[in-house]
Amino acid sequence: MTALYDVAALGNAIVDVIATAGDDFLEREGLVKGSMALVDAEQSAALYGRMGAAIETSGGSAGNTIAGVASLGGRGAFIGKVAGDVLGDVYAHDMAAIGASFHGTRLIGGAGTGRCMINVTPDGQRTMCTYLGAATELAPADVDPKVIEGATITYFEGYLFDPEEARKAFAKAAGIARAANRTIALSVSDSFVVHRHREALLAFIAAEVDVLFANEDEIVALTGAANFADATQAIRDKVKIAALTCGAQGSVVVAGSATHQIDADHIEKVVDTTGAGDQYAAGFLHALAQGRPLDQCGRLGNLAASEVITHYGPRPQVSLKDLAAKAGL
Amino acid sequence: MTALYDVAALGNAIVDVIATAGDDFLEREGLVKGSMALVDAEQSAALYGRMGAAIETSGGSAGNTIAGVASLGGRGAFIGKVAGDVLGDVYAHDMAAIGASFHGTRLIGGAGTGRCMINVTPDGQRTMCTYLGAATELAPADVDPKVIEGATITYFEGYLFDPEEARKAFAKAAGIARAANRTIALSVSDSFVVHRHREALLAFIAAEVDVLFANEDEIVALTGAANFADATQAIRDKVKIAALTCGAQGSVVVAGSATHQIDADHIEKVVDTTGAGDQYAAGFLHALAQGRPLDQCGRLGNLAASEVITHYGPRPQVSLKDLAAKAGL
Repeated sequence: MTALYDVAALGNAIVDVIATAGDDFLEREGLVKGSMALVDAEQSAALYGRMGAAIETSGGSAGNTIAGVASLGGRGAFIGKVAGDVLGDVYAHDMAAIGASFHGTRLIGGAGTGRCMINVTPDGQRTMCTYLGAATELAPADVDPKVIEGATITYFEGYLFDPEEARKAFAKAAGIARAANRTIALSVSDSFVVHRHREALLAFIAAEVDVLFANEDEIVALTGAANFADATQAIRDKVKIAALTCGAQGSVVVAGSATHQIDADHIEKVVDTTGAGDQYAAGFLHALAQGRPLDQCGRLGNLAASEVITHYGPRPQVSLKDLAAKAGL
Repeated sequence: MTALYDVAALGNAIVDVIATAGDDFLEREGLVKGSMALVDAEQSAALYGRMGAAIETSGGSAGNTIAGVASLGGRGAFIGKVAGDVLGDVYAHDMAAIGASFHGTRLIGGAGTGRCMINVTPDGQRTMCTYLGAATELAPADVDPKVIEGATITYFEGYLFDPEEARKAFAKAAGIARAANRTIALSVSDSFVVHRHREALLAFIAAEVDVLFANEDEIVALTGAANFADATQAIRDKVKIAALTCGAQGSVVVAGSATHQIDADHIEKVVDTTGAGDQYAAGFLHALAQGRPLDQCGRLGNLAASEVITHYGPRPQVSLKDLAAKAGL
């Protein structure tokens, strides 16, 4: 069957609230730098009240990846849940505006659209506190089989291992993708997600996942290995392709007995690392959907990640398609 | 009386919705580059639907100026009207977060918080369509006499000449400021505002205004002069101080028989001119409130404007106080 989409993603539909902060702010708030913590409505309001002036922009890990795929000229679809409020309008607008297809019903009369409060420290690291709001209500009924059947790759955001109904939506989508002979990809998202759901993640990877994305902390936590090198070996026989990001050191792609080490592009000044992993996945998946070799997938991933960390916000500010063409990718 | 605030401003409380656009988009939408057009709720929704993916950030001309004053280490107060919605929360939060005092009751059950849709073209020019929403309901009752009496300078945003109740709020605030021997400043805001309200603006300036801000188009329109040089002469005996901005050519400050020509700082790449005039006013007023000479006021204005045009968004992204210290201002 001809694909309708290159990548269809299931993720938390989240609006990012981005402010700059000093290291002392993280300390006072008891936040672990670089991590994502879940907060409830009350904690969210209290933290927001203490944060600096912010900008708001559509985010959410898998949503950012779809924005990256669209910027590369690919056809993306996103399945997620927003509320019937202004931020829900913003989220739906931004998806449509980048040319991606937005699926998922609006939650009316419940929680508001989810928000992720991101404090960016002077070193460019982002520390996130997420109030999931409506996003947490994503359910199997939101998964339109036609979207999944029509997508070359279905991509899951690991953050959605937290809400039970969303995990059922994963199961439904994975079953549909598998039956249609499509590729299934998963991002681990966060090492705290691994700590909370390690067994379930490993079982899902073994049963359903072809392509796994993780950073160093996440793959070490997932495999239980002593260090990154051991983790790279340990994951090798657990998934067909593992694309492992190593920050400024680039990425490592392992597939069977093959290992591709891909150096990162040089960056003059890192402004905000928000979205780096998401854009890496965008570049990788876009190239993979075109059937390109794995080292090229990794290089396109690095290129997309390199752009997003030079500015505030988790989505590309320039055409990644043009950027890739200039770089000969 | 000791001042509680350096600058108190009355303005439209507006959230900016910023997207990039090509010149062809402006043409298709029938928009005049660099201008601000007022739109109603329906036009606003239609235009938004055709715009690119956007970021949202607190804006509004006078609100931006207060943000600049706060960034320079000054004490600012802002009087404006938002709704009881998410964007209203965002606006109030951002004011508090920069250390400025936010005044003005929330509008409940009426229009939503105002928004300004800004399309930024590759040349860095911004073209704005504003749906005023709740902002248009600013009324005399929102003007707390203590705020105006306590402010060294009261600053009015010319955009507020459109709604009738807001103009009454101006009159009330001007009367209070005058009685308390405070300084009154006005920004012309936009040449279309001049076209709509020229006589009323000239009468208000003659009766109440000590410091007038305008750009080249605005001062030419206001004075009815043939060109900028003539306009500079024409305004000289109509207001105590006129601070006239000339884009990349810097600014001209005229006061009585004195003329100060202040060259602009060199900018590597102009990204988005949104907020340039607002930040110029912030620097100028901050220095003026400290009793500094007019050429220094102009130089601090240029410095603040230079920062804001190097990034998207109408408010400073770094501490203007630090920037000014580095520049010896």
